[in-house]
Amino acid sequence: MSVSSGASTYMLFRIQKEKGRTPLSDIAAIIEKTGGDIVGIDVISSDHTGTIHDIAVNVFDQAHSQLISESLQKLDGVKIIHVSDRTFLAHLGGKIEIASKISVKNRDDLSRVYTPGVAGICTAIAEQPSKAYSLTIKRNTIAVVTDGTAVLGLGDIGPLAAMPVMEGKAMLFKQFADVDAFPICLDMKDPDEMVRTIKALAPAFGGINLEDISAPRCFEIEERLKRELDIPVFHDDQHGTAVALLAGLLNALKITGKQMSEIKVVVNGIGAAGIACSKMLLSAGVKNLIGVDRNGALHRNAHYDNPYWTEFAQITNPNVETGNLSEVIKNADVFIGVSAPNILKVDDVRSMAKDPIVFAMANPIPEIDPELAKPYVKVLATGRSDGHNQINNVLCFPGIFRGALDCRASEINEAMKLAAAQAIASVVTDDELSETYIIPSVFNQEVVKKVRDAVIEAAYRTGVAQKSMRDASYG
Amino acid sequence: MSVSSGASTYMLFRIQKEKGRTPLSDIAAIIEKTGGDIVGIDVISSDHTGTIHDIAVNVFDQAHSQLISESLQKLDGVKIIHVSDRTFLAHLGGKIEIASKISVKNRDDLSRVYTPGVAGICTAIAEQPSKAYSLTIKRNTIAVVTDGTAVLGLGDIGPLAAMPVMEGKAMLFKQFADVDAFPICLDMKDPDEMVRTIKALAPAFGGINLEDISAPRCFEIEERLKRELDIPVFHDDQHGTAVALLAGLLNALKITGKQMSEIKVVVNGIGAAGIACSKMLLSAGVKNLIGVDRNGALHRNAHYDNPYWTEFAQITNPNVETGNLSEVIKNADVFIGVSAPNILKVDDVRSMAKDPIVFAMANPIPEIDPELAKPYVKVLATGRSDGHNQINNVLCFPGIFRGALDCRASEINEAMKLAAAQAIASVVTDDELSETYIIPSVFNQEVVKKVRDAVIEAAYRTGVAQKSMRDASYG
Repeated sequence: MSVSSGASTYMLFRIQKEKGRTPLSDIAAIIEKTGGDIVGIDVISSDHTGTIHDIAVNVFDQAHSQLISESLQKLDGVKIIHVSDRTFLAHLGGKIEIASKISVKNRDDLSRVYTPGVAGICTAIAEQPSKAYSLTIKRNTIAVVTDGTAVLGLGDIGPLAAMPVMEGKAMLFKQFADVDAFPICLDMKDPDEMVRTIKALAPAFGGINLEDISAPRCFEIEERLKRELDIPVFHDDQHGTAVALLAGLLNALKITGKQMSEIKVVVNGIGAAGIACSKMLLSAGVKNLIGVDRNGALHRNAHYDNPYWTEFAQITNPNVETGNLSEVIKNADVFIGVSAPNILKVDDVRSMAKDPIVFAMANPIPEIDPELAKPYVKVLATGRSDGHNQINNVLCFPGIFRGALDCRASEINEAMKLAAAQAIASVVTDDELSETYIIPSVFNQEVVKKVRDAVIEAAYRTGVAQKSMRDASYG
Repeated sequence: MSVSSGASTYMLFRIQKEKGRTPLSDIAAIIEKTGGDIVGIDVISSDHTGTIHDIAVNVFDQAHSQLISESLQKLDGVKIIHVSDRTFLAHLGGKIEIASKISVKNRDDLSRVYTPGVAGICTAIAEQPSKAYSLTIKRNTIAVVTDGTAVLGLGDIGPLAAMPVMEGKAMLFKQFADVDAFPICLDMKDPDEMVRTIKALAPAFGGINLEDISAPRCFEIEERLKRELDIPVFHDDQHGTAVALLAGLLNALKITGKQMSEIKVVVNGIGAAGIACSKMLLSAGVKNLIGVDRNGALHRNAHYDNPYWTEFAQITNPNVETGNLSEVIKNADVFIGVSAPNILKVDDVRSMAKDPIVFAMANPIPEIDPELAKPYVKVLATGRSDGHNQINNVLCFPGIFRGALDCRASEINEAMKLAAAQAIASVVTDDELSETYIIPSVFNQEVVKKVRDAVIEAAYRTGVAQKSMRDASYG
C-alpha cells in the first residue's frame, strides 16, 4: 500500500548510517513496508565512519511519519538526525533576502554607490529631506512591525517566534504588489516605548504596517503613531480584516437585495478586529450594529473598564438591545464573527431574518461549522482557504500600501479603506456573483490593480496624497 | 569640440518642450554647440501641450553642465525639469530591495509560507528559540544601524540623509559576502535610548553593524550592546578601519624589515577610528605608540575630561613624550593619520626614522599630499581609491560578518579581528608584495574567503562560536 504523491504529505528524513552496518536497501525496504513512498535519496556527506543521507518520502500523515522514524531507529547503526516536512523545508534560512539593484563591478561603480560619490546624495537629502523619496528606498519600503504579543491564534509568543509570520507578510507584499517590506520584531511591550521606538526608526520607511499586536495596546500605539508620523500607519489585523469583510458584505447584500442602511448586524468578539470591522461597517452606512462579547451585547447604559468598549457602546446598538448572542441575533440580517470556535448555534442562525448572511471568521475553526450552517444561510463566508468565500486580508494590504506609496499618502484614511473594499468587491462581476462567489481569490491579479487605483483616487479626493498627480501616474 | 564618452561625466537633462515652439533639432544643436556629446534622446511622455524628453549628454564637468542648462533655459518653450548625473541616477528609488526566496503561486504555497502552515514554525521557535537560526532570516541577516551623527566627512546630517550610505553598505555586504544587511536609521541621539532601541529590535538579526555614530557616544553604545546582546556587535568605523590598517601595516613592515614590537608609531586623530586603530596595533604587538590630537601628544601625566582619552593615555606613550605632532614624530617609524587634511608636513616626514611608513587616511583629502610625501617615504597608503595602497574597510566588514554568522559567533573579539587583518595581508603573496602593493583590491575575491575562514578559526579557538564545528563547514 504505497501513498500516491498527490494527496499525501512530504517528509524528509535525514539519517546517519554507520559504515558496514544496515545497508541502504534494507532502510528503503523498511520505509516501503510501512507504506511510505520513497521519492528520492541523496547523499549529504560521507567519511570513513559512514554516510549522511536525506530520504524524501511521501507519507499519509504525522502518525505515519512517526511510525517510519520508530522503525528506522531500531535498525543497527542508523540514527535519525532530523525529520522535516515541506513547511519546515520552505522556511530553512528564512523566506526573504536583500537584493542589490545595481552590481558593483569596479572602482568606478563603487565610488558611485558608496564613498565618495554617495556623499553628494546624502548632502542633497540633508538639504531637502523630501528627496529621500527619490534617492533612497523610502519610496517603496515599509516596516512590518510587531511585538509578537498576538500572533495568529497563538497569542503572546514573543518577537523572535513571530518572525516567520512577518517574513511571510513581507513575501506577500513583494509578490502581490512589489512593495519592499522588512520585518521589525520588537522585544518590548510598553506602548510608550513601542511608539518611541517605531517613531525613531520611521524616517527611512515610507509606511508602517503594524501586525499581531495585542488589544487594547494596539489601539493606542496605532492612534499615536498616526498622529505623530507623516507616513501611513496601518494595523492590518484591524483594518485589513475590516476592508476584506466589507468587500464581501457589499457583494453578499447584492445577492440578498438588502441595503446597508437597513440591515441589522451582530458583530461577535469586540477585540481589535471586531472594533475595526464595526467602525468600517458604520462608515459604509450600517445603522443598526450590535457588538457582543463574553458578557453579552454592549450598550450605552452599561459601564465598561475598557475605554474602547465605552466608546464602542456609544456609537452602536441604537435600540439598546441587551442579552447574550442568542438573544440579540434574533432577526439580524448579518452575523460577523471574529471571536472563537463554534460559538454560533444552528438555532441562532434559524432565528435570524430572511436570507441570513453569516461571516464566521474565527481561525482556524469558525464560529459555526459551515456544514451545519449551510442549510439555513443565504451566504456563508469564513477565514478558511479550503471553503468558498474566504475573507482574507491578503486581498487588502498589498494593494492599499501600493496605492498609498504611489501617491505618497500621509495616511490611510477611512475614505481610502472604503475605496479599497469597493474595489475588491468590484472584481467580482454581476455575471460571476453568486452565493458561493462573493469575494475574489487572492491570486486574482485584478485585485491589487483595482485596489491601488481606488486608494490613490480616494487619497487625492481627501487631500492626503503628497505627490503631484502627474507623477503618481494612474493605472 | 565634442567630449569623448570615456573620460567625461554623464548627465541626464529632463526637459519639457511646448508643442510648436523650439524644435528638438535646435535643442540638440545648442547642446552640441557648447561641446556636449549627446548619447541619447528619449520621449518620457507626450500630450497635446507638448513633450517631456530625457537627453543624455557627456559633459566635461559640472560647470559645463551648468552652461548647457543655462543655454537650454533661454530657448522658447523649453523648461528644464531636472538635471541628473550618473551618481544620482544610480540612486533613483534606492539601491536595495527585498526579494522573496520562494514564489507563492497557489493556495497550497500560501498555506505553507503564511497561515495556517506558518503557525507550526512559530510554535517550534517559541518552544526552542535557537531554531530561529534555521527557520528565519536571522542566520544570514544583520542590521546596519546609524543615527546619522557622523556620516562620512559630512558630520551630523541626520538619519534620513544617512540612508544612501547605509544602503550602499547593505549592497556591499550582499555583493561581497552574501550577507543580508538592512539599514536601520534611528532618529534619536541619547545613548541610553539608542541602546534600548537596538536591543529591542535585535532578536530578529544575527548581528549588528554600527555605522557613522559620533564619538564618544559610539564607544558607550557599542560597549553596552556587546555586553548585553548575544550576537556580534561591530562598529565598522572603529574596527573595520583598524583591521584594514593593520593588514596594510603587516605587509609594510615586511618591506622595511621592521618588527611590530620595535617600531615607534604616531597616531594622529584620537577619535573613534584613532582609538580603535591604536588598540588594534597594541594587540598586534606594538609597544611604543603615541597618540596626538589638537593639543599634542596624549600622555598619562595629563588630565582629560574625556574618559576615553584618559584610558588611552594610560595604555600608550610609554616614554611620556610630549609636544605637538612635529615634535613627537621625530624618529617615528610609522605615521597613522585618521584626522584632517594636510596636517602632516614634509619636514615632519623627513624627521622620521629610516624607511618611513605613512598611512594618511583622512578622507577625501589625506593628511599629506601623496605627491609631496612620496620622495621621502618608503611606503605610503591613503584612504583614496585613485592611488596605490587604499586602506578601505570594505576589505574587512563583509568577510568578518560572513565568518561570524557562519559559525554563529556570539561576538567579534580581538582574536577574530587580528585573524581578519592577517588574512587580508596574506592575500598579497611575497612575490607580489611591493611598496605600491601592500594591500589587496576590494575586488580580489580571495579576500572575503580568507577573512571568513580565519575569523571562523579564531572564533572556535576563543570559544565564541556557537555552532557545532561540523555544521559550520569550513571553506
